[in-house]
Amino acid sequence: MIIPDEKTIKQPRITLVGAGPGDTDLITLKGVKALQTADVVLYDALVNEELLESAPTDAIKVYVGKRSGDHSYSQDAVNKLLIDYALNYGHVVRLKGGDPFVFGRGFEELDYAALNNIPVQVVPGISSSIAVAGLQHIPVTHRGLSESFWVVTGTTASGKISNDVYEAARSKATVVVLMGLHKLAEIAEIFKKEGKQNLPAAVIQSGSTSNEKVVVGIVDTIVGLAEQNKIASPALIIFGEVVSLHPDFQFAKEFYDIVARG
Amino acid sequence: MIIPDEKTIKQPRITLVGAGPGDTDLITLKGVKALQTADVVLYDALVNEELLESAPTDAIKVYVGKRSGDHSYSQDAVNKLLIDYALNYGHVVRLKGGDPFVFGRGFEELDYAALNNIPVQVVPGISSSIAVAGLQHIPVTHRGLSESFWVVTGTTASGKISNDVYEAARSKATVVVLMGLHKLAEIAEIFKKEGKQNLPAAVIQSGSTSNEKVVVGIVDTIVGLAEQNKIASPALIIFGEVVSLHPDFQFAKEFYDIVARG
Repeated sequence: MIIPDEKTIKQPRITLVGAGPGDTDLITLKGVKALQTADVVLYDALVNEELLESAPTDAIKVYVGKRSGDHSYSQDAVNKLLIDYALNYGHVVRLKGGDPFVFGRGFEELDYAALNNIPVQVVPGISSSIAVAGLQHIPVTHRGLSESFWVVTGTTASGKISNDVYEAARSKATVVVLMGLHKLAEIAEIFKKEGKQNLPAAVIQSGSTSNEKVVVGIVDTIVGLAEQNKIASPALIIFGEVVSLHPDFQFAKEFYDIVARG
Repeated sequence: MIIPDEKTIKQPRITLVGAGPGDTDLITLKGVKALQTADVVLYDALVNEELLESAPTDAIKVYVGKRSGDHSYSQDAVNKLLIDYALNYGHVVRLKGGDPFVFGRGFEELDYAALNNIPVQVVPGISSSIAVAGLQHIPVTHRGLSESFWVVTGTTASGKISNDVYEAARSKATVVVLMGLHKLAEIAEIFKKEGKQNLPAAVIQSGSTSNEKVVVGIVDTIVGLAEQNKIASPALIIFGEVVSLHPDFQFAKEFYDIVARG
């Protein structure tokens, strides 16, 4: 139960802000400006908490993310909190990791606010799907290697691997899998069944942060590399010829060529 | 020929910065910080020139973009300018629209700099491929409607439509086409051949800027809508069930249902 203070009641509004991949400098100016005028900030697990320093010191900061073992709010509970806080305190900034609409369930919150007649402004964020590869100098597109990129989730609502992963494995697109590390072996198998055991692949942990770690190989070796190097979530998987542009790839290739030659 | 001033020679380095989709507040803090320490800024046509105000007043600002009818630099010329300026002036910020690696040819510049032993730092940008749809409250992914999104270019090096567009039209992914407005009729035809004449589709011009304009319909109507509303480049096309979440879609649907009923 939130008790309103009559003096502080302001026009309710919500700003849905993408916080970016983790590096606090990878939020947009617009995101910072939204935070500076926040009465309440609702933030997720993948958001760098240092970003909260941009909000006024007396703004209410509420953690609503999911961490294994911790208490976490359901999507319904988050939706309701957004409305409650907006009605009682004014400007609510909903700070989400990456971009709010890339597997962020941002639209569900936007929709629920609209049903409650609360205006929502969207501030896009840097999505790890593009940026985390780019920070490792792997371009999602590159002339002669890739004319498109396809971003899929490794974690669907049902728990099964999305059919889109099977389709993506058949395509010539650069394939970026978010939240797929726990299914890496299964996903690599899907690529192998398409005859792509030699396709370059990389796994990048905690891109843009001090915990960043990368392994670069091919479909046939990527599962072992990720295990040996103890890659942990959050991690992004990227499949495609563009991975061959990573500085570590040439080394890996030479090594496996020697192994292949016996 | 650039004549160096010995007193001002600094360590050569290049920062490849994504400027975002057009709104000057959609650059990252990291991008602004790079501009603030720039000795030279090389910028493209799709970059909002107001961003140059973040660079020191005495920094050299060079426009290297392409505008129809204007003189423009070839990619080779841009690569060489980057090196020349870095060697002679120090910190060169290469400011590119959107994200440097989403059809931005950013890797070619990074690679050329590496060949010349000049260190390059990458600062990702907000890519219109995700953000321009999101600003229109169209989420590229949404539970129950889309488990992935596929970003393709409408303009390939050869001038032909990419094979990836044909594959994307067959998939269940949300399909985002960049630089495809001049081929909209051809692209819509590809979706029709897959039996997707009723698939929701939108075209968004100049997303995030004061020239933003949107038309929302289905594959069968989108070409006419774009023409009637004089949608001009730069524009992004989005195909997928997620487009049905746009507030204009319900109205369009009811209208066409009435027309269909005769």
